[in-house]
Amino acid sequence: MASIAQIEHFVSVEDLSNEQVLLLLKRAFAFKQGIKWQPPKKQIFTANLFFENSTRTHNSFYIAERKLGMDVLEFDAQTSSLQKGETLYDTALTLSALGVDIMVIRSGVERYWKELIQSSTIKCHVINGGDGSGQHPSQCLLDLMTIQEEFGEFAGLKVAIVGDLVHSRVARSNMQMLKRFGAKLFFSGPAEWYDQEFDAYGEYLPLDELVGKIDILIMLRVQHERHDGSQSFSKADYHRLYGLTKKRAERLKKHAIIMHPAPVNRDVEIADALVESAKSRIVEQMINGVYARMAILEAVISE
Amino acid sequence: MASIAQIEHFVSVEDLSNEQVLLLLKRAFAFKQGIKWQPPKKQIFTANLFFENSTRTHNSFYIAERKLGMDVLEFDAQTSSLQKGETLYDTALTLSALGVDIMVIRSGVERYWKELIQSSTIKCHVINGGDGSGQHPSQCLLDLMTIQEEFGEFAGLKVAIVGDLVHSRVARSNMQMLKRFGAKLFFSGPAEWYDQEFDAYGEYLPLDELVGKIDILIMLRVQHERHDGSQSFSKADYHRLYGLTKKRAERLKKHAIIMHPAPVNRDVEIADALVESAKSRIVEQMINGVYARMAILEAVISE
Amino acid sequence: MASIAQIEHFVSVEDLSNEQVLLLLKRAFAFKQGIKWQPPKKQIFTANLFFENSTRTHNSFYIAERKLGMDVLEFDAQTSSLQKGETLYDTALTLSALGVDIMVIRSGVERYWKELIQSSTIKCHVINGGDGSGQHPSQCLLDLMTIQEEFGEFAGLKVAIVGDLVHSRVARSNMQMLKRFGAKLFFSGPAEWYDQEFDAYGEYLPLDELVGKIDILIMLRVQHERHDGSQSFSKADYHRLYGLTKKRAERLKKHAIIMHPAPVNRDVEIADALVESAKSRIVEQMINGVYARMAILEAVISE
Repeated sequence: MASIAQIEHFVSVEDLSNEQVLLLLKRAFAFKQGIKWQPPKKQIFTANLFFENSTRTHNSFYIAERKLGMDVLEFDAQTSSLQKGETLYDTALTLSALGVDIMVIRSGVERYWKELIQSSTIKCHVINGGDGSGQHPSQCLLDLMTIQEEFGEFAGLKVAIVGDLVHSRVARSNMQMLKRFGAKLFFSGPAEWYDQEFDAYGEYLPLDELVGKIDILIMLRVQHERHDGSQSFSKADYHRLYGLTKKRAERLKKHAIIMHPAPVNRDVEIADALVESAKSRIVEQMINGVYARMAILEAVISE
Repeated sequence: MASIAQIEHFVSVEDLSNEQVLLLLKRAFAFKQGIKWQPPKKQIFTANLFFENSTRTHNSFYIAERKLGMDVLEFDAQTSSLQKGETLYDTALTLSALGVDIMVIRSGVERYWKELIQSSTIKCHVINGGDGSGQHPSQCLLDLMTIQEEFGEFAGLKVAIVGDLVHSRVARSNMQMLKRFGAKLFFSGPAEWYDQEFDAYGEYLPLDELVGKIDILIMLRVQHERHDGSQSFSKADYHRLYGLTKKRAERLKKHAIIMHPAPVNRDVEIADALVESAKSRIVEQMINGVYARMAILEAVISE
Repeated sequence: MASIAQIEHFVSVEDLSNEQVLLLLKRAFAFKQGIKWQPPKKQIFTANLFFENSTRTHNSFYIAERKLGMDVLEFDAQTSSLQKGETLYDTALTLSALGVDIMVIRSGVERYWKELIQSSTIKCHVINGGDGSGQHPSQCLLDLMTIQEEFGEFAGLKVAIVGDLVHSRVARSNMQMLKRFGAKLFFSGPAEWYDQEFDAYGEYLPLDELVGKIDILIMLRVQHERHDGSQSFSKADYHRLYGLTKKRAERLKKHAIIMHPAPVNRDVEIADALVESAKSRIVEQMINGVYARMAILEAVISE
């Protein structure tokens, strides 16, 4: 088991060493190639607690858990004692006492996991399925996997992340990790969704200057649910100004790929016809997500 | 495996050959008799997506899936990215990418499945658990099973379908299939819930003329949720005019049976005391539903 | 299997003999010690129907069911035909027809189970997960288990139950059972939440007179959801007057333990810092709940 990253809690890419990330990727590819997993003799219980809407991350973890032969408790916030005022801490304390080994949590509260992993009463491993506008480390791992699958390595790759940067936990996790692995980063999108702190990771440029020179274009979803309605552009305007139109896509390099964490707003961030096109890796990202999450689950349970 | 119908998508009775239907029925009876199923070595993932309320169909599929040893992903529309505006198409595309083999879908949108089965990116088998006022093919199969179990064959049987015909996907699927297999059809119920198109399948008569001469009486549920409130009769009036009252039931032939897709509005379509009476096959229909759905699931996974 | 209590329906502590309770406790401890269960060859289907919010009871049953290798159908009331007006009786009738062996039900309706267990059409075993302000027999069993684990026996133990007695099904089940096993009961809390009927079970005293002389202190949750808002004390007032403050806790006997069915209103019934303190058995109660429920499930399926 020397080749398995042993990680107590998988909550933020900031906590991961490069070696751990590379081990996780290696195992994710092994799972994709169909390597069999020797499940532990003990029955493993995973609880999925998704307090924000999710299709991909939630179901991807579910399938990964079941592929590893784990038992899955789908926690339903709407019919739980959270409705009687119980806190996330006490909910986690309960699930831990009931025998849950791993909790996969998505919450709108940034760094919600802090008090959970500091508790000596809560024994569960915590996997972060996204925290507010904070981190989305499992998405980052599947993005790295998709890039590594395509290009073999990260160093020197030119990657543009475009769109709703300030609200995107995907952008945050990815820029930290890609920079560490030697990629060259660029940003684009509306100025009001860009923050000076991103200058530390890459260069902010107009999309039309970028499309012709990058290897990987990561388009971000316009997160209507995190905006207060004050944004000033229509869908058509956004598409024309900051979206990947068919015209812009024609200027992409021959080997360049298009990525998007999805769900996609078709014809907003990206033209409808490009979503399932030859350059798109959006479906492949979802496929890889299951294997990346199998690697994460294995890593925490091996700890 | 020559005796198993191989069906890519099970979406409408119109697409099924008579031979396929008879093979499905044969397997359903085999499952009911306790024949063991040799599950494929590969782990099979089924996703249940019910966008309309359901107790019988939903849980019946769930139990059928588990009896076949399949893994079940219960898709929760209320906490999914559908809430962020994602379409059914993109949801299905996601589940397909995650490795789901079969999707069982109920939707209020008629023929929702069309774009799903035409997509070259979506690889899942689609099973229709009911589409608006369109089709309900798995209910049709369990109804055929219940009739075959009782009478051995279909040809020459006199079947009345009574009630809310125009809103009923059950009626639509059943009249097509029963006519094909040689049954003689009759209809009854409020004139405003009858459509001339049904003339092609059978004869519209007052209920009191029908009860004494038919072999099978299929009472339909008054679907309050599909009406706009303009209907002019109270529950008591409906029961008196179009329902199976205890008095009418006394005039049924000795061997005649009562069916209903349920949920039943007791004392509306049918008198309370008749629901669990000797002539009623309503509970048997639910029992058969599990085996009929096992046959359907087996047929699509064998394709 | 002589040592397994055989119980058709587990709905109220009133229906249990002392012998059955002791057998259940014995099996619960055996499960806790890791004894392997020989699952029946037949696939067992359990349906969980929780019509009131629950974290502990619901998930505890789920994990117990899965530990026993049972298949679990999580019934979702919000997307079921209950929304079309179907009754609990007809829902149970349906689940029974579909092949469900055990139904675990929580409902706000007291004695909801009566018509279910009297039906000759419904074949399921019913386990009561709490009915209104009626009974909570599985909580009672886990409380007995926690007490027996601590003190070995019940006779002569001094137990105080404190707080919202009149709304508490936990209190009702526990006072009946503890008295039968020879414990000496005391009650405390607001006078408006005490009922004369409890005089038959024990003595009503001010909390400050009780804390120094009892062995077990069971604090009850203030059930905001069952009150009409007319109560006259703030959280701080309640804590000061009727709660287990840190000051009161200092007066507990050395070997005394604190119990609470949870969810806990921290700093209302009990000081925040006491919840996970050395004298608290609140986490142990949750741990024991899984094993107590395994014993209950085994007992009904062995019937």
